[in-house]
Amino acid sequence: MAVSIVHYRKKDASMAWGILSQDNIAELPTAFSTTAELIEYGYAKLAQDAKNSAVNHSVKDVELLSPITAPSQVMCQGANYRQHMIDSGMNPDAKKFNMFFTKSVASITDPTGQIIKPKHVQLLDYEIELTLVIGKKTTSSVQVNQNNLHEYIAGVCIGNDISARDVQIPETQFYKGKSYRTFCPLGPVLCLFAPEDIHYLDSLNLCLKVNGQIRQQDSTANMVFKPAETLTEYSQVTDFNVGDVLLTGTPSGCALGLPSPLLVKAAYLMPEEKRWALFKKGQAKRSQYLKVGDVIESSIQSADGKINLGIQRHMISAE
Amino acid sequence: MAVSIVHYRKKDASMAWGILSQDNIAELPTAFSTTAELIEYGYAKLAQDAKNSAVNHSVKDVELLSPITAPSQVMCQGANYRQHMIDSGMNPDAKKFNMFFTKSVASITDPTGQIIKPKHVQLLDYEIELTLVIGKKTTSSVQVNQNNLHEYIAGVCIGNDISARDVQIPETQFYKGKSYRTFCPLGPVLCLFAPEDIHYLDSLNLCLKVNGQIRQQDSTANMVFKPAETLTEYSQVTDFNVGDVLLTGTPSGCALGLPSPLLVKAAYLMPEEKRWALFKKGQAKRSQYLKVGDVIESSIQSADGKINLGIQRHMISAE
Repeated sequence: MAVSIVHYRKKDASMAWGILSQDNIAELPTAFSTTAELIEYGYAKLAQDAKNSAVNHSVKDVELLSPITAPSQVMCQGANYRQHMIDSGMNPDAKKFNMFFTKSVASITDPTGQIIKPKHVQLLDYEIELTLVIGKKTTSSVQVNQNNLHEYIAGVCIGNDISARDVQIPETQFYKGKSYRTFCPLGPVLCLFAPEDIHYLDSLNLCLKVNGQIRQQDSTANMVFKPAETLTEYSQVTDFNVGDVLLTGTPSGCALGLPSPLLVKAAYLMPEEKRWALFKKGQAKRSQYLKVGDVIESSIQSADGKINLGIQRHMISAE
Repeated sequence: MAVSIVHYRKKDASMAWGILSQDNIAELPTAFSTTAELIEYGYAKLAQDAKNSAVNHSVKDVELLSPITAPSQVMCQGANYRQHMIDSGMNPDAKKFNMFFTKSVASITDPTGQIIKPKHVQLLDYEIELTLVIGKKTTSSVQVNQNNLHEYIAGVCIGNDISARDVQIPETQFYKGKSYRTFCPLGPVLCLFAPEDIHYLDSLNLCLKVNGQIRQQDSTANMVFKPAETLTEYSQVTDFNVGDVLLTGTPSGCALGLPSPLLVKAAYLMPEEKRWALFKKGQAKRSQYLKVGDVIESSIQSADGKINLGIQRHMISAE
């Protein structure tokens, strides 16, 4: 059975790892200095240690931290949900290619607190994403399939691929506009899978709200490129380390409004500067973009309630 | 005075670090396990140790290795030389934005040997780049200027940003097409600067040959975004670690031939698949793309001969 790991700071400022069950945290006796150490210790031993735990906290009495520690490679996928692709003028059934990019490790932040809107950014957007946590080191291309998938994926957590659209879209490369500090909140729960839990990857429900209103709601059943094929292709271009993360794309419902394909074609006839001035002006009318003071809440869970990645909650604040 | 560090494997398969002078390597007595350890030891002590070295090798008797060890963040800049920008239909004086992207650490390879052309790649290209090696850890945005630049840059080496254009261009995000294994050869020399050497960054001559023919030749004087402003902006989106690298863009002369702005506009009126089929067909006619058996040689040095990053040499081989 999956275990729900949390990483937290206590009132005396010391940090610890524990296992969450309802509102109770059973503290683990081992002081893991990285996520990799914790994963390598093994989920079965962790579950046993939690049962024998002498220290317990209420979740309200601690400050939850990112369950992913640096260094961690932050691998990303673009356009990977059917409806999001259709909204973007793409055909999900064509599956032309699996779009890869990265975010910086410096963008990782805790599962509650503040998302900092840089001064020069006007078009701040959210993207809830199921985040895979790597469980096996690789040094060459590997073939990942349904049978060995549980070896490569130790577990999952909630990720939010916060994006400055006015940097990302005109500059064409996604890295910068998605890598400002606090642009990759992770957690609160790192759910470590037992091998028999791996099927949940295909049926988790994602929900993101802004100021209490639902903006994104979808199921991982609608992912176009599934984790096994994505990991196989990623292994061609990078080495995995235990504790690395892979954000698997976001469903439809972001603030970014894509113009009609006809308007896109027309825009390419304009000089570049005019094109992007028009883009920014058009987007600025969309009320969905995040403003200082807005609150984002994200959750991911299975329909049967057995997998629950907790609630990620942030307020947007000015730089 | 700058020192020329090399990292190498000896005939008995053991590895060592040394200081290169003409064709002689004075072996360093300390067994640094990473580039970061070597940099933190300090260039002045390294120079002193080399003088006292009891072990010397001819450079012909060792196998030169990448002077940059994993883990290392591979930061990149796109379109950063005046002529290359003009050839690409951009105005270098407009300086609209500094384009950032990353390559995977798995793409790093030794300064001599083979570049592996993946089976599915037809349009394999080269990009010689002056590669900055980070000398100072950061955890927040920093202001880098001419006065403190030497603190952030420990030294430089040759980098080649090998690119699969038929993956990179149609997929729009650069990471994948530039991250296959062997796509980032570094070295042979890691030239560690004394503070007074930092001015050389603005006047190094780059030269890349394929099968003995010069394809790229330019001076770092023609860089559009200089290292200080690039590091300042990169520090907004990532943390630097000692031994990370920053590839500062490539001069004109790559195999990639960019069509006229008019043709680009016309291409955007076509369906996407037709556009990229046309792109690949047009590019395939260009004889400059790398073929199995081709030999690439790169060199970077100062006009006064005081900075010489050696010769990087690779043959293209089939996967």
